[in-house]
Amino acid sequence: MVLQRPYLELVAAIDFSPALQGKDAGEILGKGKLGIPIYASIDQLPRKFSAQVVLHTTVSWLEDALPQINACIQKNFSVISTTEELLYPQWKYPDIARQLDHMAHKHKVAVFGTGVNPGFVLDTVAILLSAACIQVDSISLQRVVNAATRRFPLQKKIGAGMTVQEFRKQARSGRMGHVGFVETIALVAHAMGWKLDNIRETLKPKVADRRLRTQFLSVEPGQVTGIHQTCRGKIGRRTLIDADLQMYIGAPDPFDRIVVRGNPGIACHLEKGVAGDEATIAMLVNAIPLIVDAPPGLKTVLDLPLVRWTGNRPGQ
Amino acid sequence: MVLQRPYLELVAAIDFSPALQGKDAGEILGKGKLGIPIYASIDQLPRKFSAQVVLHTTVSWLEDALPQINACIQKNFSVISTTEELLYPQWKYPDIARQLDHMAHKHKVAVFGTGVNPGFVLDTVAILLSAACIQVDSISLQRVVNAATRRFPLQKKIGAGMTVQEFRKQARSGRMGHVGFVETIALVAHAMGWKLDNIRETLKPKVADRRLRTQFLSVEPGQVTGIHQTCRGKIGRRTLIDADLQMYIGAPDPFDRIVVRGNPGIACHLEKGVAGDEATIAMLVNAIPLIVDAPPGLKTVLDLPLVRWTGNRPGQ
Repeated sequence: MVLQRPYLELVAAIDFSPALQGKDAGEILGKGKLGIPIYASIDQLPRKFSAQVVLHTTVSWLEDALPQINACIQKNFSVISTTEELLYPQWKYPDIARQLDHMAHKHKVAVFGTGVNPGFVLDTVAILLSAACIQVDSISLQRVVNAATRRFPLQKKIGAGMTVQEFRKQARSGRMGHVGFVETIALVAHAMGWKLDNIRETLKPKVADRRLRTQFLSVEPGQVTGIHQTCRGKIGRRTLIDADLQMYIGAPDPFDRIVVRGNPGIACHLEKGVAGDEATIAMLVNAIPLIVDAPPGLKTVLDLPLVRWTGNRPGQ
Repeated sequence: MVLQRPYLELVAAIDFSPALQGKDAGEILGKGKLGIPIYASIDQLPRKFSAQVVLHTTVSWLEDALPQINACIQKNFSVISTTEELLYPQWKYPDIARQLDHMAHKHKVAVFGTGVNPGFVLDTVAILLSAACIQVDSISLQRVVNAATRRFPLQKKIGAGMTVQEFRKQARSGRMGHVGFVETIALVAHAMGWKLDNIRETLKPKVADRRLRTQFLSVEPGQVTGIHQTCRGKIGRRTLIDADLQMYIGAPDPFDRIVVRGNPGIACHLEKGVAGDEATIAMLVNAIPLIVDAPPGLKTVLDLPLVRWTGNRPGQ
């Protein structure tokens, strides 16, 4: 996607896989040698290497991503990241958020977490829809994904093919299911000016009632086929934002749905859902011109001009 | 709506209706005296009167609105306006757009045209949806409005109760139908970085096949019940953006629909459509904090942070 943009230049890639190191990114992409080296880590970049933006797509959890993001900032690279918890770190990790913002200012770069979910369908779109409301009372968010259409790591992440027992054990460890739901709720609440008292998540397995196959794996009846996850943001006993995500192999009718209750109420249905893997890449690359032009700091989508397709550069 | 916002203060109203002049806006709103005078024109404001923003809701055509908007700018008031042609005056009126931008800079104010259509459902929402696309090939916009639910001036504007002959005559004069379709297309094209060769509109009457009544008027069979308007933006022979608006008394299934064709494609359905009169007011008032914080100039939604409900002030 970067190579297709006439106003962007892909200057390097970084991947820890030994199989990729020393190769040319053009070769990996099936485009022949393009003179784009693949480094094993950011420390291996040449001394005088310069770049404006790093597209960072490694891990979901902020604490795991933090050393990588900090290394980018220290080299004066802005960062656009799919780390789900970076969407709105101010809720779970206010100290890290402050530190990232401070570092970004010091190095005059912008740091921005985005993606499709979190980052687009259930938060950015919902926030925009609220603009047409005189009053907003509450917001409901729903996403149903047929995980059979998604990449292998996602199918693993939702537990497809696990026993229910194994799923429950992994779920208790907190490293199972969709990451970023809390950040979606916290970002929407922040945009609405709602000071939530708490955000609570639930996670249950969806269980297969028949044999299912994807190009990567198969699921027997009684095994886990994916997740049903919910998240609620409350003030006192009142739920202001509720979110419901079903992501499983064989979901028959995928969609995204946002209901803003208020005056007027708005119900938005995204037919068939927004295709996750493509849309995530798009959100990253489309943000590049906006991030390059942004003042320094830790950014959310609220700080940027209206995000949009920037295939021809932003129109201004 | 302004009175309901704790961080806003309504300091005056201006209306040319002699019936309102000298009255208190609070009385007109049924809230008793609030000390908010209604003036006949901007020239009657007291000498030392100060305000930050004018919410300007008078006429659809830019040339008619221009003296009013210029008068606001000269008094150093920012302007948020429902004048449909102000949404993106750069297409039809590049000279006026340049002049407004120059004046706004000189007086350090921002000037912004918004509303629900144009301004939200078929342009701002479509632009945001494109953010999730690697590639955008074309965009289709559709809105069906049951005009029976709308205010009387709108029912008149779409020709409800006219003969077909009268409608055609008025349509030829160019002062019939929905204003702002061209601006919607031009704004979306600008956001996509598409340099359109032309934008063409068509306008046809919808004709009643039975007797219809609203709280304001009745329509006999064979009379006009509303409009069917289309607008297309092309580069060469290729249509990049097409828009279709049906707005008539008795439309059975109102909705708004945006289809972004590309990779991935996105189809967005706003169920029952976004209620026009309320949403227009909301777009105006919700923009206030964003416009007050914006750098000077003639603005489009692309220049502002993500527009959103600002009932509790923007969350930053």
